[in-house]
Amino acid sequence: MSEPLRVADGLYGVAVTDTGISKSAVDGSLTYRGYEIKQLFEKATFEECVYLVLEGRLPNRRELDAFTTDLKSHAALSRETQNLIGTLPADGHPMDVLRTAVSSLGVTERSLPAREQQISLIAKMPAFVANCYRIVRGMPAMEPRPDLSQGANLLYMLKGKLPSDFETWAFERELILYLEHDVNASTFTVRVVASTLADIYAAATAGLAALKGPLHGGANEAAMEMLLEVVEPDNAGTYVKDSLAGGKKIMGFGHRVYKKVDPRAQLSKQLLKRLLEEQGKDDKLYRLADALERAMWDAKTIPANLDFYAAPIFYSLSIPIHVYTPIFAASRMTGWIAHYNEQLMHNKLFRPDAVYVGPSDLTYVPIDKR
Amino acid sequence: MSEPLRVADGLYGVAVTDTGISKSAVDGSLTYRGYEIKQLFEKATFEECVYLVLEGRLPNRRELDAFTTDLKSHAALSRETQNLIGTLPADGHPMDVLRTAVSSLGVTERSLPAREQQISLIAKMPAFVANCYRIVRGMPAMEPRPDLSQGANLLYMLKGKLPSDFETWAFERELILYLEHDVNASTFTVRVVASTLADIYAAATAGLAALKGPLHGGANEAAMEMLLEVVEPDNAGTYVKDSLAGGKKIMGFGHRVYKKVDPRAQLSKQLLKRLLEEQGKDDKLYRLADALERAMWDAKTIPANLDFYAAPIFYSLSIPIHVYTPIFAASRMTGWIAHYNEQLMHNKLFRPDAVYVGPSDLTYVPIDKR
Repeated sequence: MSEPLRVADGLYGVAVTDTGISKSAVDGSLTYRGYEIKQLFEKATFEECVYLVLEGRLPNRRELDAFTTDLKSHAALSRETQNLIGTLPADGHPMDVLRTAVSSLGVTERSLPAREQQISLIAKMPAFVANCYRIVRGMPAMEPRPDLSQGANLLYMLKGKLPSDFETWAFERELILYLEHDVNASTFTVRVVASTLADIYAAATAGLAALKGPLHGGANEAAMEMLLEVVEPDNAGTYVKDSLAGGKKIMGFGHRVYKKVDPRAQLSKQLLKRLLEEQGKDDKLYRLADALERAMWDAKTIPANLDFYAAPIFYSLSIPIHVYTPIFAASRMTGWIAHYNEQLMHNKLFRPDAVYVGPSDLTYVPIDKR
Repeated sequence: MSEPLRVADGLYGVAVTDTGISKSAVDGSLTYRGYEIKQLFEKATFEECVYLVLEGRLPNRRELDAFTTDLKSHAALSRETQNLIGTLPADGHPMDVLRTAVSSLGVTERSLPAREQQISLIAKMPAFVANCYRIVRGMPAMEPRPDLSQGANLLYMLKGKLPSDFETWAFERELILYLEHDVNASTFTVRVVASTLADIYAAATAGLAALKGPLHGGANEAAMEMLLEVVEPDNAGTYVKDSLAGGKKIMGFGHRVYKKVDPRAQLSKQLLKRLLEEQGKDDKLYRLADALERAMWDAKTIPANLDFYAAPIFYSLSIPIHVYTPIFAASRMTGWIAHYNEQLMHNKLFRPDAVYVGPSDLTYVPIDKR
């Protein structure tokens, strides 16, 4: 056996698999199954995009209707799942509660056929996100409505009232942007777990575990906290300067792939402007975000990423900040499942090597002689 | 940006990190923190080895006493955790129940100091393994006894009666062998999750997710099922021949690192013989395992691995087969935590690349024109 190849930490610049699901490129392009993200953002429904990422092609009307019916029939949480969530304390972090609840679905649904397990997981994410938030706080659980889309249902269950058509449309745009992004840390985690032939619930639970990390999914919440802290567009330059000087990390900027522009951030930026207009609100939040984006570009040539502009959109939709990362998860679940399936098509167990740098040839000495 | 380096599927032969925790080598050697596994197996207690893997050196008497006291004070499950387990159905797979319960600890204990969280996780694994098994089956929960070691407590809580000193010693030998094994699939999963800066509960939950897979931790249970199926040592040759001819996988053989001998399997093999003698039992189970090992070597030159010999030891200790993988997890938790800590010492987010092989430049067509 030859010596292992020592690659860069974090597997930077190391391609660990082939994939046909999505492609992101340093020039600022992103495609899902060959379709440029801008086309999907402007024209497709969220459910169409879920089908596309999962199945590899856009559905025709009959296929989409059947798929949507399937999702709706699996959208509600069982009484068992609600009871489990109800044992958790009110101050639980929503990502921890969500991870635990999704893991429990692997106990209660393990005898379903594999395809149905996947549909069930995707279908239940809106009810999971809304009710993990509600139940631990002592609010009554909400049931999904069969007449609503996934996005509308999530907003409806979270807030207890129906969103407007425009709000639903805007929210679903963000869900589309969060759907899939090749082998980011959580998706890579899902593929490693899939490679052991563990089931989809195990893999999805592990994806949720990775997404919790502040270097990954936690960034949209942190970005909103920062926007609320800066308050005025005129403060942006000073805030960026002071933060950088003080070694404080500025959240929602920079991306492993996109070095000049994150296409999802720019689509979201336009959407934020339009949303505030439609809602008849002042555009201060837009101007604030724009000022921070410019200040960061001037200071560090680092572009805003999706999290930076998704945050003020969610905020303008009156979504509690604590569920921004769970919403990311609700959408990304489809990407994870697509990668799970792709991994299993030509599976090889992920079992890397490490270079040993510790001590050697030590001799055990009985404890009383140490 | 240069083209990514496309490495072998499964990261075979790719060193993804440096490590000073353990070293396994193709020649059949394994060290924990520089100590040959054979020395630890013969001379150390399980708690000493836990300390060694976690802290990087063997404890003196005072350190070990303090560490053991710390573990004991965190060994019991809270009423909340027991209630959560109690909502899960009786036919739940123990690894799914265990993963869900450990995940919930991340909700209830998230405000503990980081070091205490790690001690708590290690300390609670015996109670988790025993009570995840018991509670879902409607058996009364068992409390750990402060006068027992981790291994003795696990056996005691699982079966409801005190094990003999020899049984405890034998069981702890297997726990020592399962403690740590560099960047196997579950440990690698833990490191990827750690790299997002997610907390230890998220990382441990992800490790449990990976360990469930039949290509990873599930093998000890499958090996025992096989031993029970073959029954007679004289059947071993035919069984191996027929299985290989029929394309049936023979569990408990082969290893990513060890090509000739798994040192843990050989230590376990001697232990199995001795355990059966001490128990005054017939040595048929030993002869059966030995016959299968020889038949596999003759047919395929593939050595038995740890799972193959741990299984009949657990069986001889009257441990239910369904908890063999959870027991593996109870021990490996320490290895996972050591790798979590090591990852964070020089962290870089795991964010590999992929080679895109799907379609390009597709044009979105409205659904009614498809």
